[in-house]
Amino acid sequence: MSELKKYLDDCAQAVEKTLDEILPKESDYPQTIHKIMRYSTFAGGKRIRPALVMAANEACGQTFANKNVCLAGAAIEMLHTFSLIHDDLPCMDDDDLRRGRPTAHKVFGEGVAVLGGDALAIFAYEVLSRIGDIKIVEEISRALGTGGMIGGQIIDIESEGKKVDLQTVEYIHKGKTAALLRSSIVIGALIAKADDKKIAALSEYGNAVGLAFQVVDDILDLTSTAEQLGKKPGSDLQNQKATYPSIVGLEKSKEYAKELTQRAKNAIVSFGEKAKTLNEIADYLESRIN
Amino acid sequence: MSELKKYLDDCAQAVEKTLDEILPKESDYPQTIHKIMRYSTFAGGKRIRPALVMAANEACGQTFANKNVCLAGAAIEMLHTFSLIHDDLPCMDDDDLRRGRPTAHKVFGEGVAVLGGDALAIFAYEVLSRIGDIKIVEEISRALGTGGMIGGQIIDIESEGKKVDLQTVEYIHKGKTAALLRSSIVIGALIAKADDKKIAALSEYGNAVGLAFQVVDDILDLTSTAEQLGKKPGSDLQNQKATYPSIVGLEKSKEYAKELTQRAKNAIVSFGEKAKTLNEIADYLESRIN
Repeated sequence: MSELKKYLDDCAQAVEKTLDEILPKESDYPQTIHKIMRYSTFAGGKRIRPALVMAANEACGQTFANKNVCLAGAAIEMLHTFSLIHDDLPCMDDDDLRRGRPTAHKVFGEGVAVLGGDALAIFAYEVLSRIGDIKIVEEISRALGTGGMIGGQIIDIESEGKKVDLQTVEYIHKGKTAALLRSSIVIGALIAKADDKKIAALSEYGNAVGLAFQVVDDILDLTSTAEQLGKKPGSDLQNQKATYPSIVGLEKSKEYAKELTQRAKNAIVSFGEKAKTLNEIADYLESRIN
Repeated sequence: MSELKKYLDDCAQAVEKTLDEILPKESDYPQTIHKIMRYSTFAGGKRIRPALVMAANEACGQTFANKNVCLAGAAIEMLHTFSLIHDDLPCMDDDDLRRGRPTAHKVFGEGVAVLGGDALAIFAYEVLSRIGDIKIVEEISRALGTGGMIGGQIIDIESEGKKVDLQTVEYIHKGKTAALLRSSIVIGALIAKADDKKIAALSEYGNAVGLAFQVVDDILDLTSTAEQLGKKPGSDLQNQKATYPSIVGLEKSKEYAKELTQRAKNAIVSFGEKAKTLNEIADYLESRIN
């Protein structure tokens, strides 16, 4: 196992332990809402966002998987899950499967799925409040809001089936994907009480890595097998989604992912050896196959 | 106009000015999401929650409608609106009208309504972060979470059409209604940096007033005309909702509302003259006709 693979596994293990500790038990009243929160949170994701929190936190001088980065990583995973549950609803993307399992509304019904997403978002804020830094609350809210994730989601919905330009695709991707990835990195730095210069550099890294992540997602949807992907490839085409390859083609998209990865690495040169893990994560996100 | 009526009007005016200042404009990109946020927030509510923030804040020695209580009042109204948008969805209560106007999903579609509710919740947290007190974030999250509002909503959904006991009705009411009313009062006190003893007293007042508010709502649904109520009465019966009168009868419900109101006033006796407005609000909430 490569060093990075072990790092990512250790991060995932730490955040899953935290999630299990803080999430209400399935047997706690009212059971249904706690069941859907756990069902959706423990669905086998890569936990890449918590890994970014931890790697940025370490790059700013703190120790691996300390208590506060575990809380922040868990909260961010819950916020990511909240967005996925609502995205999968019949009135949104109408997806029956996620990571090979029935989506939340297929198992619990639509009303419970709406509330389950809401409950994860609200609980994530409660968990973030335990870290005690109001700047983190402001940062994550900006990332999730109409200038970030939700802004990307609404334009994504409005663009389906329409011919959109590159600028719009970039807006959707920055919002839907890059905003939360970038914010994970900034929050790791905030927990380490990093200075503004460091935060600005990491924020730039996060923007580039976040956008690269989505460009690669678009490419994989076209080039992977169902086995590699864990879901049916070609779903973007089928849903007439605005993607990079659909506008600039596959080769130019690959070049762009490479360029963004380099841009990310350039942004954190000043961190020297401390940015080793962040550099490796950038390379991994570009070359991943699922 | 009575003194209290003027107080409530002044509170409503202050919070609506704040909401108008802080909410993104309808012309700001992406327009659709900002339109639904404003459409749903400016729907002519009584703004009783912001009034409770302000009255509790004044009872703890601060000045009327200061900047922080206006921000908190605005955030709480947005959180209340978030819960109403999701509650009205076809997969939840399936309501076409709210306060005489078409509900958000009727105007903007279901997908946009889900995101519009999400956007108001997230933006509310951004606004709360501007006050700079992490305790407020923790307080509101507990009030909204599965031990509060969302807990009440899920049991409300699960109880429809079933015969439920008094304990369950009380659980639903405490969660769906009382939790956010109580939290508004506690947040007003937190902004004034009140001590724990004062906060505990106000919290007890808030619990009692919040529960009374919902008992009166149940009564009004049975006894009011459509003109008084601004919506069709009898909707609880029609939706087979668990209510107080459906279990203990109308007279006992009225007695209970009176008893809760007295309990609320008793809880804040130690505030003396400073609790004048809070006492008047308690009486008003019991005797209101819509």
